[in-house]
Amino acid sequence: MPRLPFSDLVSELHRVLVRHGLADPRAALVARLFAENQRDGVFSHGLNRFPGFVALLKSGRLDPTADPVRVGGLGALEKWDGRMGVGLWNAHFAMGRAVELARLHGIGCVGLRNTNHWMRGGAYGLQAADAGCIGICWTNTIPLMPPWGSADVAIGNNPMIIAVPRPDGHLLLDMAMSQFANGKLEVLKRQGRETPIAGGFDREGKLTRDPGEILASRRPLPIGHWKGSALAVVLDAAAALVSGGQASHQIAQQGTEYAVSQVFIAINVTALAGAGEIEAAVNALVDHLHTAAPLVAGEPVRYPGEGMLRVRRESEQLGVSVEERQLTELRDL
Amino acid sequence: MPRLPFSDLVSELHRVLVRHGLADPRAALVARLFAENQRDGVFSHGLNRFPGFVALLKSGRLDPTADPVRVGGLGALEKWDGRMGVGLWNAHFAMGRAVELARLHGIGCVGLRNTNHWMRGGAYGLQAADAGCIGICWTNTIPLMPPWGSADVAIGNNPMIIAVPRPDGHLLLDMAMSQFANGKLEVLKRQGRETPIAGGFDREGKLTRDPGEILASRRPLPIGHWKGSALAVVLDAAAALVSGGQASHQIAQQGTEYAVSQVFIAINVTALAGAGEIEAAVNALVDHLHTAAPLVAGEPVRYPGEGMLRVRRESEQLGVSVEERQLTELRDL
Repeated sequence: MPRLPFSDLVSELHRVLVRHGLADPRAALVARLFAENQRDGVFSHGLNRFPGFVALLKSGRLDPTADPVRVGGLGALEKWDGRMGVGLWNAHFAMGRAVELARLHGIGCVGLRNTNHWMRGGAYGLQAADAGCIGICWTNTIPLMPPWGSADVAIGNNPMIIAVPRPDGHLLLDMAMSQFANGKLEVLKRQGRETPIAGGFDREGKLTRDPGEILASRRPLPIGHWKGSALAVVLDAAAALVSGGQASHQIAQQGTEYAVSQVFIAINVTALAGAGEIEAAVNALVDHLHTAAPLVAGEPVRYPGEGMLRVRRESEQLGVSVEERQLTELRDL
Repeated sequence: MPRLPFSDLVSELHRVLVRHGLADPRAALVARLFAENQRDGVFSHGLNRFPGFVALLKSGRLDPTADPVRVGGLGALEKWDGRMGVGLWNAHFAMGRAVELARLHGIGCVGLRNTNHWMRGGAYGLQAADAGCIGICWTNTIPLMPPWGSADVAIGNNPMIIAVPRPDGHLLLDMAMSQFANGKLEVLKRQGRETPIAGGFDREGKLTRDPGEILASRRPLPIGHWKGSALAVVLDAAAALVSGGQASHQIAQQGTEYAVSQVFIAINVTALAGAGEIEAAVNALVDHLHTAAPLVAGEPVRYPGEGMLRVRRESEQLGVSVEERQLTELRDL
């Protein structure tokens, strides 16, 4: 795969965004976030998704100039309306606001409604962790899988993110409620690969590892079976309540996914202890995790986010991996 | 199974607690919580666990008179030390405090360290929901399963709870990070039943449904495989940082589980919208979930907490189910 210097990738994405009507500072932020997702190996929300974002920009279904407005709140809890603006811009703003609230109040929580796909949720967790906070956020989505006990697609896969700050590399959990995110299934299908474990049901209702079958049946397996289904439901309900926005079943009525609801929480742990104390506690936990004997020789246990960090460092040294066809597609945009 | 009026069960539990040195108001709260867990069908943290709690009381490893003390905080975020008091008392206090903070600040977050097993975490989520708040809480535990990629027991199963208020029955997610909690595996083993899906690995490293094998290998399957393992790690780190208390690997050094770390978050959604608006939003979500066609005729899709509520209502009408041997055991305590 060709490799591109990070800054060249950002410039190229920025050029395309500006050309299609997104002005700075939004264009600069969106270009950086897409490039970072690609740099970090989160290909499902990097260049694979970028042409779709450009198509959305051109569709007029999104307001490329909107800023979120505060529509309510009390102290450390605020409700914002994303006014159908750029999802990445709104999400980045909302986590920034949660961090500001956490500086004042110890913890900050922002509900964001009428917003659009944030692409990689982990980006906003990392944003909070960069500010020394624990970052927790989640989004609802259009229904993408059946609730446990049904084959009817009726719940979102509602990714949830938890990031814990650590100077040598934040801990980062970024997970959809399906065992494999749709973006991941699409990548595997394109690569002609199977899911490493059963990822859902085929059209006959049998568990399968064929990503194409799962995408066709629309029955991805929730993580932990009934547990992930239940988690998706409570996250959806909480997102709708905190933001005053739509739940997944209401998004479904639109036919396509827009005007979703999100929650952003930042916990200012440095208000509770010195930065050195916090660093030592997280490092001790990571060090302990690394002492667990690996099942496969040469594949040590990793802390959440460690694999991503390894890809990032490689990208920083060698350039960001970009598929040839993506580069061509990008240059034509 | 015999059935006992709820109030009789509370009285009997209260008698035993007082006899073994726990005074009111702690004895009254603990008796009520254990009885409610049994009433709600959460047998793993009802009478199955009660004799163990009494043994803990008698062991002197717990201070039956301790109250948590505030050891730090900023605004809506507070850090408390549980001073090795009664876990249920401390957890109930901490969620109550998070709710108080949420009334003032919109959201409240309490870290609690040096506390003991809270039994059923869902109880504290329901407590927040009863107060009109979204309740989120989690605890770390002594290591109970291997992290993904190892067979060494090195991470807790760190239950996480999310409750969403609803007058006709709160939404409640209460899940351990293992597909089946150890308490559940113990119940199934005693009943001679298998787990409904693979629940972990046997001593040869193969997936199995035999609860005895899983308890023996100490390799329960994390929910969503690597995802539940990662979630357990970030919850542990967050609990240790917010409370300033021990992480799972430090609890492990003690040999037995005590002095754990917990986080309690309450989000005061009624500060953002009228109670009627909130009720309507959650009811619409539940109603939609109920329209999904069931895979098995006569087994409609349930919202998280619905099955529990059904057992509770049955217990309220007919009395609380108690096994004969538990009743005998209780009377001898």
